[in-house]
Amino acid sequence: MSAAPDEVAQALVGLSHVVEPGHRALHAAVADLGPVAAWEALRRGNPCGALSPELRAGAALRAEGYRPAEQLRRLEDGGGRLLCPGDAEWPLARLTWSAQPGLEAPPLALYLVGPARLADVVDRSVALVGARAATAYGVRVARELALGLADRGVSVVSGGAYGIDAAAHGGALSSTGASTIAVLACGVDISYPKGNERLLHRIAQEGLIVSELPPGTTPTRGRFLVRNRLIAALSLGTVVVEAARRSGSLATLQRARLLNRHVMVVPGQITSGASAGCHEQLRHPDHPAVCVTRVEEVLDSVGAIGVDASTPLRGPVRVRDDLPETVRRVLDAVPVRGGAGEAALARAAGVSTLVVQQVLPPLLVHGLVERTPQGWRLTSLGAR
Amino acid sequence: MSAAPDEVAQALVGLSHVVEPGHRALHAAVADLGPVAAWEALRRGNPCGALSPELRAGAALRAEGYRPAEQLRRLEDGGGRLLCPGDAEWPLARLTWSAQPGLEAPPLALYLVGPARLADVVDRSVALVGARAATAYGVRVARELALGLADRGVSVVSGGAYGIDAAAHGGALSSTGASTIAVLACGVDISYPKGNERLLHRIAQEGLIVSELPPGTTPTRGRFLVRNRLIAALSLGTVVVEAARRSGSLATLQRARLLNRHVMVVPGQITSGASAGCHEQLRHPDHPAVCVTRVEEVLDSVGAIGVDASTPLRGPVRVRDDLPETVRRVLDAVPVRGGAGEAALARAAGVSTLVVQQVLPPLLVHGLVERTPQGWRLTSLGAR
Repeated sequence: MSAAPDEVAQALVGLSHVVEPGHRALHAAVADLGPVAAWEALRRGNPCGALSPELRAGAALRAEGYRPAEQLRRLEDGGGRLLCPGDAEWPLARLTWSAQPGLEAPPLALYLVGPARLADVVDRSVALVGARAATAYGVRVARELALGLADRGVSVVSGGAYGIDAAAHGGALSSTGASTIAVLACGVDISYPKGNERLLHRIAQEGLIVSELPPGTTPTRGRFLVRNRLIAALSLGTVVVEAARRSGSLATLQRARLLNRHVMVVPGQITSGASAGCHEQLRHPDHPAVCVTRVEEVLDSVGAIGVDASTPLRGPVRVRDDLPETVRRVLDAVPVRGGAGEAALARAAGVSTLVVQQVLPPLLVHGLVERTPQGWRLTSLGAR
Repeated sequence: MSAAPDEVAQALVGLSHVVEPGHRALHAAVADLGPVAAWEALRRGNPCGALSPELRAGAALRAEGYRPAEQLRRLEDGGGRLLCPGDAEWPLARLTWSAQPGLEAPPLALYLVGPARLADVVDRSVALVGARAATAYGVRVARELALGLADRGVSVVSGGAYGIDAAAHGGALSSTGASTIAVLACGVDISYPKGNERLLHRIAQEGLIVSELPPGTTPTRGRFLVRNRLIAALSLGTVVVEAARRSGSLATLQRARLLNRHVMVVPGQITSGASAGCHEQLRHPDHPAVCVTRVEEVLDSVGAIGVDASTPLRGPVRVRDDLPETVRRVLDAVPVRGGAGEAALARAAGVSTLVVQQVLPPLLVHGLVERTPQGWRLTSLGAR
């Protein structure tokens, strides 16, 4: 039984309102029940016991009287749009990952404002992030790196904050090349911080404002942290330009590491506290950051996964493009007709049943596979 | 047949005058014939054909009329002394290495001025080197790192040049802890550069001036490069504080790498050309330098081979202490009486004959083994 697109969109708006982004149990529930049934279960007080009591309890108050259809209209009236996992513009490869400690679940849906097409702009994108309390050196470097990247057709992803983020967005906007993406920890209709209102307005007109929180949502400390995984996920690599020890931008770098993206830092004087976090990352015991000092060095790093200055721009990403190797093998093993059990899929894909069990839920959430009484099979999107 | 100490000293002075330091063929000839016979062969026109024609031809002019005994007297009158491989003050483990591309042969002998005992001070020593054209930032960092290292009992080795070198020596001299060692590319009686005359004089009074060139020798471009391997060899690790791309201090770092010492750099602003060489070393494809920003981080690195801030100072190095594993195994296999062939040594040491053939010459040069009609055996020094 396949839900109508409107129904799915409304369910995802409802779910993203009542539960905080990155919530693993909700992600699992949506993978299990589908968004429409999960939303109904939350909204109606979980009559069949399909959701865990904790999930239901936490969501109950917020779900009361919430009208997703109204919110969707307001979003569209304000020039925004909702992006769902099944949509062609959804950057599937970037937003698919397995559960692991320190990394929150992928987004359920994304709210966008701006002319750019998300799947296209993140095909060649680098995150430039750093301290709000940046020095003149950091601001200058962020601006020049962003300009250079955009000039070479690489979009610049950042968090819309003061300091390094603002310099990165501004540098990219001053290029006539690729655009810039601001990933917010609040609704796309909220200008936060207030002082960046004009900057965010320009990004909405020329690039893309992205959030997984519905319009009207204000930022909280927790939302900033969870938002950081999106900045990392939507980029081939993350560059921290300036960061004190324990800076939030190091949380972004750590998520980039967990997501198997390239982790890079710009060095500075050892007498500057604003560079101390960057230097610490160069000394990371297991997975040190790469020191980058020029645009070419950033491109050298991210070029290792198929992008470099001399590569012509590619067309839109197709469903199976760039999926992690294991995920693609499992997906390739799922039949178009009939159905297959998890053990059969594991045999066919040459992986363990455990891997199959980890990989199927995100594929289900993204509408690539479905469950039938005969077992797992591809949806029409997954069969593309 | 063992030569008298005076005779050996005079031969080494003669050899170090007539052939440039690090000369592999001379090193091999000395390993083969012993210093006295090698010097005699050079001086007397190679009557028995023991030396290669090239070696003889290059040395002939300089050997003519050179009187090592007079030079030795002049050295001692000036407060200096000659250190030979058999001496207890000779830091054997630091000055023993096998031939490899890009690395010149070990020194034949060393000229010293100063109160410190070489084997002791290099037991815990770090090289701090960098650009002559240093910035205020680099000078400040070099001075502070050197002071901090000396305060913790680690001697600071450098090259006596302007800029970073001078700041490093000066920082160490301002400590009441360990001393500092200037390794020169000219005779120990020459103040080069002239502007550092007072600094070098203080080092001669409080630390140690070291050179493998006899008194009176002026510096040349080639001598600076060959000298750099000594700076690296006499230290547990080398820290480059500031260096432009292609700076001479990067040659020191490269030799530290080949000598299996710790290689470290201090980062700086990416807009400063004086740090560009340091950043490049952080991106070295095979063996990247470690980024260090504090004294503790330098100690963390060199601590990995047995030295750290909390380790009490050790006594003088004994002959077999800290010799590379392979070298020690070969040395352990050499008999005290009788003699053994190379194949027998290889079997006993559990290494290839090739390794034995590479390891024996330096052991011979350092007076640890000798050749007899029955094969190789330990000298009394080697048997200690």
